[in-house]
Amino acid sequence: MSKLLIVGTVAFDAIETPFGKTDKILGGAATYIGLSASHFDTNSAIVSIIGDDFPQEYLDLFQNNNINIEGIELVEGGKTFFWSGRYHNDLNSRDTLETQLNVLADFQPVVPQSFKDAEFVMLGNLHPLVQLSVLEQVENPKLVVLDTMNFWMDNALEDLKKVISKVDVITINDEEARQLSGEYSLVKAARKIEEMGPKYVVIKKGEHGALLFHEEEIFFAPALPLEEVFDPTGAGDTFAGGFSGYLAKTEDISFENMKNAIIYGSNLASFCVEKFGTERMQELSKEEVHSRLREFRKLTQFEIELT
Amino acid sequence: MSKLLIVGTVAFDAIETPFGKTDKILGGAATYIGLSASHFDTNSAIVSIIGDDFPQEYLDLFQNNNINIEGIELVEGGKTFFWSGRYHNDLNSRDTLETQLNVLADFQPVVPQSFKDAEFVMLGNLHPLVQLSVLEQVENPKLVVLDTMNFWMDNALEDLKKVISKVDVITINDEEARQLSGEYSLVKAARKIEEMGPKYVVIKKGEHGALLFHEEEIFFAPALPLEEVFDPTGAGDTFAGGFSGYLAKTEDISFENMKNAIIYGSNLASFCVEKFGTERMQELSKEEVHSRLREFRKLTQFEIELT
Repeated sequence: MSKLLIVGTVAFDAIETPFGKTDKILGGAATYIGLSASHFDTNSAIVSIIGDDFPQEYLDLFQNNNINIEGIELVEGGKTFFWSGRYHNDLNSRDTLETQLNVLADFQPVVPQSFKDAEFVMLGNLHPLVQLSVLEQVENPKLVVLDTMNFWMDNALEDLKKVISKVDVITINDEEARQLSGEYSLVKAARKIEEMGPKYVVIKKGEHGALLFHEEEIFFAPALPLEEVFDPTGAGDTFAGGFSGYLAKTEDISFENMKNAIIYGSNLASFCVEKFGTERMQELSKEEVHSRLREFRKLTQFEIELT
Repeated sequence: MSKLLIVGTVAFDAIETPFGKTDKILGGAATYIGLSASHFDTNSAIVSIIGDDFPQEYLDLFQNNNINIEGIELVEGGKTFFWSGRYHNDLNSRDTLETQLNVLADFQPVVPQSFKDAEFVMLGNLHPLVQLSVLEQVENPKLVVLDTMNFWMDNALEDLKKVISKVDVITINDEEARQLSGEYSLVKAARKIEEMGPKYVVIKKGEHGALLFHEEEIFFAPALPLEEVFDPTGAGDTFAGGFSGYLAKTEDISFENMKNAIIYGSNLASFCVEKFGTERMQELSKEEVHSRLREFRKLTQFEIELT
């Protein structure tokens, strides 16, 4: 079992969807990544920052899921990062209502001594300079996965390009891939992004699934068609956690095994959206994941004869 | 080998894409369906209407592809249906520049005597009353497939519902499925549409693939990620032609075999968009189709172990 180092936000979210709204609940990229990866009983650690308003029960939740929290800095008198957003009726787009950076504004990540030799690193969505700083503290990782978003392309492109040049896998959505590459065709976009550094490009298309590109190879993982999407918050991070967690568990970074990692990521993300926040992920059983894995298999597998 | 009866437009199209524009070229739903189905050496017939401006070489093209043209009514002194459109830069949307119904305005379809016993019927996109009239002339088909579009939902919904209640399979795109059912979730939309008549619902999502629904079963066929889409005209009809042609060829209408039919439909559609109009379909070889079928298999097939 390899070590998985996760950097990202640990936060409070307040969410409105057509189905209801929440008060401040547990959120943040590293939270979703960590809970998702923990499905694989990984040996993981989160590097992040919180204020003293962050409840002990959430820290206990991490530890109960075998997530090392030494790297979560607690700022006395500080307030935890807060995001609030409202989803539109189709749940495919949202407005940010409020962002309070709070302690995140001055975050200097410190990787715990015991995870400097982590074989797998998952850089969750954060300022590229924070991601770079984490990378510099890790000795000789086997695989580095980067998640990012259009906000950093708009506001910190040069820093972002530096991180991109140092990672093995990048996960972004289709619009971001087009923005980053200047290419509309996702095949061409992925090729251009590979030239920027990553050997593997994962393009997330939400309800339309995800594509994995590597040189001339392409793999497509569907999203499971769901009767009801309740709250999409954290789906991308849960996908990234499933992806990196599965690779850390299996210690196999071949293209063939990355296919499985993408299927697992899609699988876990399909649960995440069924309830508000991390609720569904907290109660998720191995049996449920396995059962849905069989649904994924049925969804796309076919036996065809040439005519 | 079963008989496949196709009804739909045979037309002239003038197309503008970001890559160029055409004069009046061969188009029409039945044209694309027929050429696509002919890949399977089907015994097919087109029921449609043309004016005397329609070139003999196009009729020869149909006959050379083993498509019976007795049901294509030629109106002396009449002009063939004409459509002209301009695609936007992303090729995902288009504006209609001009529509001349011409001889189509008074079309009374007549099914040739030799195809009244057709086992397979493909109702291409046309006024629902024309589709109904064809159905009434066919004796005892094994499978009827309906293609339609939002225009008829807006302008002839009651007639459309009558056709829908009489068919086995309906193919529509995702937005149309939502409009027809009033449900945003495609799973729920498909279930509602099944209640309207069809036992099978195919939802086309363009570059995002296609879904097949039947009771509790779902199958997903990806679209092949393409480097370049040149002209999307006819892709949906080509999909329908591949789907119905494969079923007519194999004479197996089980859910398992419909999966293959959807894969073949997607496969053929992926060629259609590579050149203007029907150009690519006319020159397409069996070897190319088989080679791409192997790409489709690689794209989604995976071997996964439960963790």
